[in-house]
Amino acid sequence: MAASWEESVEYSINTIYLLFSAYLVFVMQLGFAMLCAGSVRAKNAMNIMLTNVVDAVVGSLSYYLFGFAFAFGEGSNANPFIGTSFFALKDIPNSTYDYDYSFFLFQWAFAIAVAGITSGSIAERTQFSAYLVFSCFLSGFVYPVVAHWVWSSTGWLSPNSSNLLLGSGAIDFAGSGVVHLVGGVAGLWGSFIEGPRVGRFDSFGKATPIRGHNATLVVLGTFLLWFGWFGFNPGSFDKILVAYPDTSDQGNWTGVGRTAVATTLAGSTAGIVTLFGRRLLVGHWDALDVCNGVLGGFVAITSGCAVVEPWAAVVCGFFAACVLIGFNILAVKLQFDDPLEATQLHGGCGAWGLIFTGLFAKEEFVVQAYNAGAVGTVRPYGLFMGGGWRLLGAQVAELLAIVGWVSLTMGPLFYTLHKLKILRISVADEIAGLDVSTHGGHAYVHTEEHQPRFYADYVRIQGNRS
Amino acid sequence: MAASWEESVEYSINTIYLLFSAYLVFVMQLGFAMLCAGSVRAKNAMNIMLTNVVDAVVGSLSYYLFGFAFAFGEGSNANPFIGTSFFALKDIPNSTYDYDYSFFLFQWAFAIAVAGITSGSIAERTQFSAYLVFSCFLSGFVYPVVAHWVWSSTGWLSPNSSNLLLGSGAIDFAGSGVVHLVGGVAGLWGSFIEGPRVGRFDSFGKATPIRGHNATLVVLGTFLLWFGWFGFNPGSFDKILVAYPDTSDQGNWTGVGRTAVATTLAGSTAGIVTLFGRRLLVGHWDALDVCNGVLGGFVAITSGCAVVEPWAAVVCGFFAACVLIGFNILAVKLQFDDPLEATQLHGGCGAWGLIFTGLFAKEEFVVQAYNAGAVGTVRPYGLFMGGGWRLLGAQVAELLAIVGWVSLTMGPLFYTLHKLKILRISVADEIAGLDVSTHGGHAYVHTEEHQPRFYADYVRIQGNRS
Amino acid sequence: MAASWEESVEYSINTIYLLFSAYLVFVMQLGFAMLCAGSVRAKNAMNIMLTNVVDAVVGSLSYYLFGFAFAFGEGSNANPFIGTSFFALKDIPNSTYDYDYSFFLFQWAFAIAVAGITSGSIAERTQFSAYLVFSCFLSGFVYPVVAHWVWSSTGWLSPNSSNLLLGSGAIDFAGSGVVHLVGGVAGLWGSFIEGPRVGRFDSFGKATPIRGHNATLVVLGTFLLWFGWFGFNPGSFDKILVAYPDTSDQGNWTGVGRTAVATTLAGSTAGIVTLFGRRLLVGHWDALDVCNGVLGGFVAITSGCAVVEPWAAVVCGFFAACVLIGFNILAVKLQFDDPLEATQLHGGCGAWGLIFTGLFAKEEFVVQAYNAGAVGTVRPYGLFMGGGWRLLGAQVAELLAIVGWVSLTMGPLFYTLHKLKILRISVADEIAGLDVSTHGGHAYVHTEEHQPRFYADYVRIQGNRS
Repeated sequence: MAASWEESVEYSINTIYLLFSAYLVFVMQLGFAMLCAGSVRAKNAMNIMLTNVVDAVVGSLSYYLFGFAFAFGEGSNANPFIGTSFFALKDIPNSTYDYDYSFFLFQWAFAIAVAGITSGSIAERTQFSAYLVFSCFLSGFVYPVVAHWVWSSTGWLSPNSSNLLLGSGAIDFAGSGVVHLVGGVAGLWGSFIEGPRVGRFDSFGKATPIRGHNATLVVLGTFLLWFGWFGFNPGSFDKILVAYPDTSDQGNWTGVGRTAVATTLAGSTAGIVTLFGRRLLVGHWDALDVCNGVLGGFVAITSGCAVVEPWAAVVCGFFAACVLIGFNILAVKLQFDDPLEATQLHGGCGAWGLIFTGLFAKEEFVVQAYNAGAVGTVRPYGLFMGGGWRLLGAQVAELLAIVGWVSLTMGPLFYTLHKLKILRISVADEIAGLDVSTHGGHAYVHTEEHQPRFYADYVRIQGNRS
Repeated sequence: MAASWEESVEYSINTIYLLFSAYLVFVMQLGFAMLCAGSVRAKNAMNIMLTNVVDAVVGSLSYYLFGFAFAFGEGSNANPFIGTSFFALKDIPNSTYDYDYSFFLFQWAFAIAVAGITSGSIAERTQFSAYLVFSCFLSGFVYPVVAHWVWSSTGWLSPNSSNLLLGSGAIDFAGSGVVHLVGGVAGLWGSFIEGPRVGRFDSFGKATPIRGHNATLVVLGTFLLWFGWFGFNPGSFDKILVAYPDTSDQGNWTGVGRTAVATTLAGSTAGIVTLFGRRLLVGHWDALDVCNGVLGGFVAITSGCAVVEPWAAVVCGFFAACVLIGFNILAVKLQFDDPLEATQLHGGCGAWGLIFTGLFAKEEFVVQAYNAGAVGTVRPYGLFMGGGWRLLGAQVAELLAIVGWVSLTMGPLFYTLHKLKILRISVADEIAGLDVSTHGGHAYVHTEEHQPRFYADYVRIQGNRS
Repeated sequence: MAASWEESVEYSINTIYLLFSAYLVFVMQLGFAMLCAGSVRAKNAMNIMLTNVVDAVVGSLSYYLFGFAFAFGEGSNANPFIGTSFFALKDIPNSTYDYDYSFFLFQWAFAIAVAGITSGSIAERTQFSAYLVFSCFLSGFVYPVVAHWVWSSTGWLSPNSSNLLLGSGAIDFAGSGVVHLVGGVAGLWGSFIEGPRVGRFDSFGKATPIRGHNATLVVLGTFLLWFGWFGFNPGSFDKILVAYPDTSDQGNWTGVGRTAVATTLAGSTAGIVTLFGRRLLVGHWDALDVCNGVLGGFVAITSGCAVVEPWAAVVCGFFAACVLIGFNILAVKLQFDDPLEATQLHGGCGAWGLIFTGLFAKEEFVVQAYNAGAVGTVRPYGLFMGGGWRLLGAQVAELLAIVGWVSLTMGPLFYTLHKLKILRISVADEIAGLDVSTHGGHAYVHTEEHQPRFYADYVRIQGNRS
């Protein structure tokens, strides 16, 4: 029997909404590629862009074959730790769980973003074959498991399950923790085990700034990420055609718009704070820091975007900028070198985002986002809003669980690659640059003399060792 | 009580339409950033991109706190000059005025575009702190007031009010006047008061071309603006689910598509005219001029896009190109230096757009766009279409009011900044470039030698004066 | 009489879907511009970007005036070869054929893509005036005729006509043949008749690689094309609100999502195969080849995307990469020089896509895509799926017809331009680069010395001969 006209209308509207949101999230992969390329030196631009392309293409197959199954595979043998069905899209579309192809595509776009975050932390010094190994493992296994915990209805941290942790479950609406903290913690271990780039700290431990080669690409990437975040955060409602029973003319469509506004305000506030904060700290108006500030605000609001008031998003962005600036100062002190500040930004602001939600989530919005506004529902909400400690507790549980899980999986992986001497490139190759040593030539060829000769020279001198 | 299913469907459809249109309009900010960056010299690229980022982040907070209220604040004490409610989104969503968060986001994306236009006019020679002042004032106050006049139902120029100016009201559908002319006139005063860049005119008054540093960015920016204009113009219908009573199967969905087609045709025609016109005038096929020509066509059609036939859009684009070419010749004659041609393009073509609508608006489409096609409605329309002088009169009134208002507000502001000597940078800084003097270093670093030393040298020689 | 509420909802939903898909397809024009710019030498960047802008603006007018009419002009005097009504959008919107402005815009975005493909094949050595001639002829006449054959309901190859070729009609859902093969074959003739670029092959016939000047632009363009392909392939359903009668909750919304997934998987697989294949062949990890591999996968799946299972898309991508690698090796052997590999990629993979559909199309999906899932419909489908030879026969017929038609029209055109000596630029201009010789200066100006003097020098030495 066919769907009724009313059902067809609902499916169509929700599919348009989710699919075009997925397309926007995909744009973030382009944004990451441009941001990363601009933030590294010209000699490594091709390498880092290739890692972003590879995240997408390898992620497509691995998420299709098993990643989606690990994250959302439910059914009779469902468990709170890992999904076990829907491998290779078997039984999709699935009307029981309301999973159509558009849901897969949306989730795929999230999965490929995670490895992109980490690629920034280990930029400019990682062997490409090691990258392939870690990228598959992270986006194909480590990340989907966390997604299952929080976003699958059977996950142990899920705010939708029948057995809510602390009677609340963790609220990580679009993934400050699931996506950004996971990528940031993975980057922390990768970057820590690899050590700083040659020349980043001198023999007295003093930091030397290493500027990226192209600020235009950084701004391009930042705006593209902003554009994509309109899919990431509001799109995480999955459905737009859901009316709230206790308001006369509101539904997810209002929540979706408010989420977009909250996202914008958090990022903007963080950008402004960074602009003036860095002006005070370093004495000039720094465009690149503002870009990172904006992204830090987005990362932080990603957890609570759907359940906080716009004014709270301003608060969120304010402290996100402080967290980012603080962690960046700390990183220099500790001689920790993350070329994209991904650990500080996605890790630090992602963690702050989880806490923020536990403090500022508003009861009405929590009920709307997680119970479709069902009249009479009682749920824990933000501590500062009078909602008690239980939501905050669940948020902290998610934070600790993610840090532990990613450390226990990615740490040993990076350490093993390191011990096998297949993680980091040689000093000679690092000075020459990855593009010449591994990828066949420079990203930029502005004069005829730079044409094939350069690569041939390199091969002659070094031998073809890639 | 909840919205009925039918209402929920309508809200969902219209929200999807408006939100995704808002996202596209936001892309224009990226388009401006790239267009501006490519059109200035490499030494000022970071500066102009930062202004575009700052327009967005500062504009978010100011439009949230008071800009939206000035523009659309209605209610018991509404007046035709300025809005007075909805500060900090209080009472939004508002079912009386049908203002949901998506409407705010759409209007926000418009507001941040205005300062972006003006930033082009004063590029390569303006102090960054002066930029912050003018940007806030323009997008937080000057622009919202004009938006209130024309787009709020209580505005004195509104085509929707209960007291139509000349029985017609001005038709400025997506803002040839409200957005582009406002930005262009502000740029005129800024650029005039600052004077030309060093080296633009020699001591005999002869112009020396100053080429932008990157044509690829200009083309990238132009195409992104084109993409964004599909949100700007068709999106200004706000709602797509509005049936016209006197046609069997048409409604706003048809108007929306026709608007997109008219926009495309106007821009394309202007591009072609510029291509061949410049070939005749300067002897080569000029890619950058074609880009500006396309944008001139878009600016001009923005006022009338919803109320003219596609063939009229071709006429609109033809004359837009002529206006742009003519004003550019005039600017050189008058030794007026606007690095982005923003005054000529957004000001000149914006003004032409207002007049064009007064000449070519079609009765049927005016009734559809402003009275939902209500049977029996009589409205003034385009002079050349037999609709009399009243619409043209209202268009001229809008043109004069905008020129007057922006001149009276922005002129004194720029003049005061100029007198306080905080508007323009020093000649030494202008020759060194804003990026080194104010923003901590060059946008591009292609060799190791350009790393931190360069900035250190500059600081050593000039002292840290930023 | 107005449309009923139900009709209005349907029109609105389908229009949103089609319009936003059209916007995405438009982004492909930007993607092509960036991909092409990055793949040529810096001295020709402005030229190739101008060709992409010109494709769009000239294509707008020609498709408005007659291209759309040739492709979709139906009515009383309709014929299977070429359309004959709807010139200059007369009688559009048309309720009989369900053609609203949004349909025109979607098809326009396809039309301008075709010339963009061919512009890559003849890059770096073609006179701009010759480009104008061929671009108009290709996108205004040659392409629309093929579109009429396959996509108009009266076309002789159409899978929707009342007189199906071989009882099947050709299935070229989004145009592996109609768009990509047409562009590729045109490029083959242009590139063959012009001959290789100076320096591409030495006097012994040995190939010298000529690297593009900017890998970042190549990656940017590739991701933008991927983003746009989400409009190209899923958007080709035209309508999303179509329920399938013999499934409980599926309709075009499911087909649309599956199409997006199939597209993603085919491109990703092709990218992975290229990554490892090129690693084996040339010894390094080549980012640019991966980009072309991804695009080859997209081109190939474009024909069958709506009618195959996701696993089949993986197969499609695997062989698309093989086809691309193989044709590239063959091109070097034959001393054929296509700077963008457009002939190999769009021609080769486009042809493979047509065959692939004839092998792997699934019966259920064919009935859904072409008969709205009407119960009891019997249609030929893929040979390997047990559907017999008839679909494959129709696919081969389309392939041969396109190769023949484009060869018979574009071949003589290029040959005539060649004989008139207005096709290729002089060797001196080719060495100097098209930007200086024809477009008034370089795309990039990174130092003050490169400002106007360079062009003045060129003009002085060469005389103004453009």
